Amino acid sequence: MSEKIITITREFGSGGRTIGKKVAQKLGIPCYDEELLEKMVKESGFVKEYIEEQSEDSVGWLNSILSYNGLTMTNQDKLWVIQQNLILDLAQQGSCVIVGRCADYILRDENILSVFIHADMEHRANRIVTEYGEREQSPQQRLNDKDRRRAAYYRFYTDMKWGKAQNYHLSLDSGKFGIDKCVDIIISAFQD
Amino acid sequence: MSEKIITITREFGSGGRTIGKKVAQKLGIPCYDEELLEKMVKESGFVKEYIEEQSEDSVGWLNSILSYNGLTMTNQDKLWVIQQNLILDLAQQGSCVIVGRCADYILRDENILSVFIHADMEHRANRIVTEYGEREQSPQQRLNDKDRRRAAYYRFYTDMKWGKAQNYHLSLDSGKFGIDKCVDIIISAFQD
Repeated sequence: MSEKIITITREFGSGGRTIGKKVAQKLGIPCYDEELLEKMVKESGFVKEYIEEQSEDSVGWLNSILSYNGLTMTNQDKLWVIQQNLILDLAQQGSCVIVGRCADYILRDENILSVFIHADMEHRANRIVTEYGEREQSPQQRLNDKDRRRAAYYRFYTDMKWGKAQNYHLSLDSGKFGIDKCVDIIISAFQD
Repeated sequence: MSEKIITITREFGSGGRTIGKKVAQKLGIPCYDEELLEKMVKESGFVKEYIEEQSEDSVGWLNSILSYNGLTMTNQDKLWVIQQNLILDLAQQGSCVIVGRCADYILRDENILSVFIHADMEHRANRIVTEYGEREQSPQQRLNDKDRRRAAYYRFYTDMKWGKAQNYHLSLDSGKFGIDKCVDIIISAFQD
């Protein structure tokens, strides 16, 4: 197998971003996550905060979709096009890990290893409190809300079902395995 | 991690049974698949062919459920109880691999590694023709039919969604990785 790109789709709080970074570090290839956002700022002219507000699990995106007048291209659609082009460009530049942003769908015709990271509510709730220091409301409520938004975003742009095993080459329960074991499994799946 | 049992849930034609056998062989532990059926013959008094006809992806099971009068315990329910008890018994006897039969659900409170094996239609169609010599109708039609029956059986007895990544610790696309690579990934996930 000679995949060049690893895409990581992840449930909020599952540690997918950390896993992506560690995989990239071990393989000595770049990991695009925050960097992708910065590239989008540059390409779109929108400020970072606005793009974040319109991203896959935010309030802004869904509000815009629901109030869409059907006539013009929304800012979300513009950002989707920019995101698509950026990710397709990155795929031409060599091996890398891309976290989130529907990269698995955007690169579906390329030579990728698409990974889905999930974990049960308890592990994720614990993680968002201890790692991100989230306190605003009950962690379970926050996770349910994020899950629904990510699933809706994914469905809207890809017409695929979020979290359906058949959509990914490899799905892992980070609550069961822990972060480092997930990293090892992904690397072993990536290599010949 | 010290899982004792590996459960393998699989799409028809994905090679999950072969993968289960190879994993068990490499780990030097038993694999229950056909043996489980034989135990069910002994426990239930039904002949093998009848049990097969009532199993997870057969015509008989769904017909019985749909024509259920709501008053008595169906043969399918009796078989389900026997299957549950046999699988719980096996789990007490030491490490093993169990293929199919909702073992992931039946052993959900035990120390298991639950694996889901899937593959795209093309790989599965090719496999059922070349490995099983199936010819009766179009392989795609046959696979769609089997998929629907397995999903219905799984949903009916477990109230869980077939193929939802979050229900398994590890999901693998055998069309992408091939049989032997899946075996290696499962073993690496199983071991500490």
